[in-house]
Amino acid sequence: MADRLSDNVIVGLTVPARIGMKLEDVATPALIVELDAFERNVAQMRTFITQNGVRHRAHAKTHKSADIALFQIEHGGACGICCQKVSEAEALVAEGVGDVLISNQVVDASKIDRLACLAHDARVLVCVDDLANVDDLSAAALTHAVTVVCLVEIDCGAGRCGVKWGEPVVALARKIARADGLRFSGLQAYQGAAQHVREYAQRKAKIDTALEQVSATIAMLATEGIACEIVGGAGTGTYYFEGASEVYNELQCGSYIFMDADYQRVQDEHGLSISEFENSLFIYTSIMSKAKSDIAVCDAGLKAQSVDSGLPIIFGRDDVEYVKCSDEHGVIADPGDALRLNEKLKLIPGHCDPTCNLYDWYVGIRNGTVECLWPVTARGMAF
Amino acid sequence: MADRLSDNVIVGLTVPARIGMKLEDVATPALIVELDAFERNVAQMRTFITQNGVRHRAHAKTHKSADIALFQIEHGGACGICCQKVSEAEALVAEGVGDVLISNQVVDASKIDRLACLAHDARVLVCVDDLANVDDLSAAALTHAVTVVCLVEIDCGAGRCGVKWGEPVVALARKIARADGLRFSGLQAYQGAAQHVREYAQRKAKIDTALEQVSATIAMLATEGIACEIVGGAGTGTYYFEGASEVYNELQCGSYIFMDADYQRVQDEHGLSISEFENSLFIYTSIMSKAKSDIAVCDAGLKAQSVDSGLPIIFGRDDVEYVKCSDEHGVIADPGDALRLNEKLKLIPGHCDPTCNLYDWYVGIRNGTVECLWPVTARGMAF
Repeated sequence: MADRLSDNVIVGLTVPARIGMKLEDVATPALIVELDAFERNVAQMRTFITQNGVRHRAHAKTHKSADIALFQIEHGGACGICCQKVSEAEALVAEGVGDVLISNQVVDASKIDRLACLAHDARVLVCVDDLANVDDLSAAALTHAVTVVCLVEIDCGAGRCGVKWGEPVVALARKIARADGLRFSGLQAYQGAAQHVREYAQRKAKIDTALEQVSATIAMLATEGIACEIVGGAGTGTYYFEGASEVYNELQCGSYIFMDADYQRVQDEHGLSISEFENSLFIYTSIMSKAKSDIAVCDAGLKAQSVDSGLPIIFGRDDVEYVKCSDEHGVIADPGDALRLNEKLKLIPGHCDPTCNLYDWYVGIRNGTVECLWPVTARGMAF
Repeated sequence: MADRLSDNVIVGLTVPARIGMKLEDVATPALIVELDAFERNVAQMRTFITQNGVRHRAHAKTHKSADIALFQIEHGGACGICCQKVSEAEALVAEGVGDVLISNQVVDASKIDRLACLAHDARVLVCVDDLANVDDLSAAALTHAVTVVCLVEIDCGAGRCGVKWGEPVVALARKIARADGLRFSGLQAYQGAAQHVREYAQRKAKIDTALEQVSATIAMLATEGIACEIVGGAGTGTYYFEGASEVYNELQCGSYIFMDADYQRVQDEHGLSISEFENSLFIYTSIMSKAKSDIAVCDAGLKAQSVDSGLPIIFGRDDVEYVKCSDEHGVIADPGDALRLNEKLKLIPGHCDPTCNLYDWYVGIRNGTVECLWPVTARGMAF
């Protein structure tokens, strides 16, 4: 992407940085990716899937970036990507992604039409949890003369979309298998409520329950002669359970590439922070007011980050603390009067996915220098 | 703006709606403005400032829209606008706004340069709370041969930017008054921490304190022969205190045009919700899963709204309740199994400002029909 940028762009107005610039000169607040850490995270997941003999369909809802999606496929061994919305998938397919699961229901007539249309340009999979929706998807697939691949979504504990395991799944699978223009390919069983549970044993217990439900459903489908090519799910908080389960065969992790402050609070079996992935994503911010000795105010507030999962953590500093977030300001407790006006800080965002969706650009940094600018291709694509 | 839209745009992909479309056909999630309510809110504020003999510098951080800013100036009697960031001001000045206060500090060298540059195209005001910053602003104003108007920011209780009232303000005002290229025009005294305080008497007490500090500071400046043409501040939660104070002369309300769920919890002197302004801003959302009888899942999650001030309220319905928000999903408790797949709902967002910043378009609705599309001109302009 970076080489498409004209020299006429104005740093700060059009883009937050220019390639070759020092990190300190990047216009703040900016979303920066430390490329070495990012690449190690991608390699770490590739190693895991190779060792466990499972596929990885990387979740693009985290980053919404075509550059990152293609990097995950080319260098991370990902078999394709997940998206959450049709518009998100459209934006990434337009940039060259060829295999995309909408890990969600698509029920609106115009969105179903767009979904089927997209199947001309990519292998398109979608989740289903409603019998009448099967008819609508089938009709659109026939209209566009395409095949739409369907997974039946099981609610295996998240309390969100998806039908109950067992017979409701079989009924949907049977209907999809017989529907023109559709192909039944398996199950979507993402336990979203388990990912951020702090305690390892509690997370494991939730996935154990999901595994029982998914296994029992697969067995019921088998008695009807319906096979599941894909048993998909898992996120950054639980992928090692699903990945080693011999039940799931397609993981869907998203946050592992970046990590965030909330995932830092998720513990491994020893009660320690997840350690196999590093923080690679930061909000780069400047101190814009130092009118008091004991606080500083930075320029990254609610429009620079989502605080739904808590406030950001200031990276590499234990002498100062981000304590309050308003629209455009972050108040930083600075008891030792250590911070100076216009000093730069790196914030670990509380929650990476909705934070990335606020920005137009990732600024890729290596050794303190801007190496690349990646557009947030599907920024705002929520429909 | 709307008439500039090509007929080639694809609804749902490029824009959420087309003019003349029925509300029910708008692609969800979408940010909709009920135009009658919006216009009544603007008229209500115009009446207030007229009756109280104060100016209103409408805060554009709420909406980030050139169409709305120009409407506030042309139809709402606003003397200009406030912005929070240089990039936000640049975007709105480029669309024709001629008088803009950056109600914030600008301390980075490149941003100061852009600020001074902007003064070629508009009257530009900025807040100051640091003595060295005065030198930097002055140098940039001289370089660009412009005048930058400066307000000294007092921290009158918000605990954010700004110096203490009294002598620190006088020192800054004196320095600004003597600096080439700068003009001292008064005080910025926004009590941001008072706006959302629920109880009327508590809000009033906070503004009373601010008024004492501001009045005392004005008196101290007067003894030095320094006059304050502008005494600015106030938001939607307290403007009637400042507006009637005879101390403040320039209000800076933002949320009044839209309102939100959190402002609905702010009480008037009778313990009732603020009633002079109506909810005009909604997130239009669809039910995307109804696989269980007692819950429904809608398509407006964390990427469709900011939940920093609480979850959204479902407009006009007391039988269903938005109870949980994740990245792309909202879980709605539906104890009576009333909701149907693809049914549309209007959500009152918890907090309007950071919610608007997530969208590219406002969809203006009158009598159930799309009347206009307004771009969120300065969306993402946080730097």
